[in-house]
Amino acid sequence: MRNSTDKSLTLGIDIGGTNTVYGIVNGNGDILVRGKIPTTGHENFTSFLHILRKDVEKKLTDKNISLDSLRAIGVGAPCLNPDKGIIEGAVDLPWPSPIPLTQKLTEIFGIPSSGENDANAAALGEMIFGAGKNIQNFIMLTLGTGVGSAIIADGKMLHGKRGLAGELGHTIIRRGEDARDCTCGRKGCLETYVSARGIVTTAQELIKKTDIPSNLRNLPEIDAKVIGEAAAANDPLAIETMRITGKILGEACAEFTAFSSPEAFIFFGGVAKAFPYFFPSMKESFDSNLLWVYKDQVKFLTSSLPESDAAILGAAAVGI
Amino acid sequence: MRNSTDKSLTLGIDIGGTNTVYGIVNGNGDILVRGKIPTTGHENFTSFLHILRKDVEKKLTDKNISLDSLRAIGVGAPCLNPDKGIIEGAVDLPWPSPIPLTQKLTEIFGIPSSGENDANAAALGEMIFGAGKNIQNFIMLTLGTGVGSAIIADGKMLHGKRGLAGELGHTIIRRGEDARDCTCGRKGCLETYVSARGIVTTAQELIKKTDIPSNLRNLPEIDAKVIGEAAAANDPLAIETMRITGKILGEACAEFTAFSSPEAFIFFGGVAKAFPYFFPSMKESFDSNLLWVYKDQVKFLTSSLPESDAAILGAAAVGI
Repeated sequence: MRNSTDKSLTLGIDIGGTNTVYGIVNGNGDILVRGKIPTTGHENFTSFLHILRKDVEKKLTDKNISLDSLRAIGVGAPCLNPDKGIIEGAVDLPWPSPIPLTQKLTEIFGIPSSGENDANAAALGEMIFGAGKNIQNFIMLTLGTGVGSAIIADGKMLHGKRGLAGELGHTIIRRGEDARDCTCGRKGCLETYVSARGIVTTAQELIKKTDIPSNLRNLPEIDAKVIGEAAAANDPLAIETMRITGKILGEACAEFTAFSSPEAFIFFGGVAKAFPYFFPSMKESFDSNLLWVYKDQVKFLTSSLPESDAAILGAAAVGI
Repeated sequence: MRNSTDKSLTLGIDIGGTNTVYGIVNGNGDILVRGKIPTTGHENFTSFLHILRKDVEKKLTDKNISLDSLRAIGVGAPCLNPDKGIIEGAVDLPWPSPIPLTQKLTEIFGIPSSGENDANAAALGEMIFGAGKNIQNFIMLTLGTGVGSAIIADGKMLHGKRGLAGELGHTIIRRGEDARDCTCGRKGCLETYVSARGIVTTAQELIKKTDIPSNLRNLPEIDAKVIGEAAAANDPLAIETMRITGKILGEACAEFTAFSSPEAFIFFGGVAKAFPYFFPSMKESFDSNLLWVYKDQVKFLTSSLPESDAAILGAAAVGI
């Protein structure tokens, strides 16, 4: 068994709507132990945490690691207010709000716990273990079904009131009649253009309104992954879709730069896999929309963490 | 003479293009001593600082305060990089860049010195002594000839790379052909609509394109001050100008909220005097453009510092 005074290990827990995954992470970002339990189907929130603890202990025993050797717990969860460690209004979780997450974790595990919402946890993971290492100022954009974001400024996570800083997916990038409707009830949000859904809408519009040749026209249904693969295979309509996506992302990143003066944007999420196809137009649009004082100051990067590890490493980074 | 171990006093220095003003400020924000020397006309930057020190010492002697009793110097100056305390590329100052401001101040006064650019210093003044007291998250918008801004997030000044965070006057609030040309070389910047110049342009457009009655039509020249006074006197065209200004400001503030989740916006500068006339349309436009998670969370305030003291208090706050 490891020396129980070796306090270099952190338990990272990512609570999702379906599953809760966890890992024991050392200072280098190696995941020594991994585990997963369902988030749903437990009697209540407390019993969920007791089952989680049992699962963690079992896995630790298998690896000859003592629970005492963990220095901290970091947890990522939707709608987590980092000031209080409380989950408020997370519709995807099976327990009534407010959920006093970090307080209960500390109680049940006997280990100091801290938490962040999942998008912020991902950015901290990137800052401690990934592409954001040694970068004091960056903005992480998670391009998935929606667009999540987190802002690292002056070496720290920007929280703002109630931890609600960084809803950049809901900044307005198009105004007027033609702006796309957003699920938030407003129009023209960045998310409606550069999320997986937004990219599909762009491709569908091009299919309808242009003659650009494309194999996508023959498919009964398209999603962002298929469009990315088509772009990789030089499909003209998919390439045009990525050009439009990049152009809008570049405009948005130029705006964001005037806010926190980042050194880098780090892209994460399913859509970020198509980075090579939207990067050229994004860079061109960024440069032509940027205020001159920021010229040649900002890099565009993609996450350097393995996709399967990112949630655990992000959660662990919260505890570090 | 005051007890030289009473280290509660700060020297605040605001270096402007024409004059440099300073004051000795206590912890309550009382200015005990004030002074002013011209910024220009000195042999070089070092001789400027020696003359400044002599002037400060003379004023202190008159009041029986010892230079030793000062705990710190805070300085506000254009284009000051707060990380290094160096002024870079300030076209309005008579010395070649880079100017090692805080290092030289520390040397010549024998007192620890720190600096901020002037817009940030104003926000720190508001945070320590003014309307921003006890507010952990606020955005200050200085509406003058241009639009300056500073962001206080999680109780700290947001700097970003090279201290360039918070160029909110140059976020794009209008896109497309009709967007106004900005002095930065781009189009549609917030500054072109809500600065003193922007307000004059709006009034001139209304004079040209509408039949709204107005005494402003009879004036050979109009400025923002005159428009504000006309709005106060119920001039319909001036009121419409303020309505448009408020509408655009509200849209912009809704965008900014999605970035740093502020509790308040604090308005400062000449145009802010017309706050009562642009507030109603600003509030309405803010509410209708805001992402729902921020609803009813954000206040609109004006600076509570006397205009003549704001620069000195801001500079002093940098040293606190």
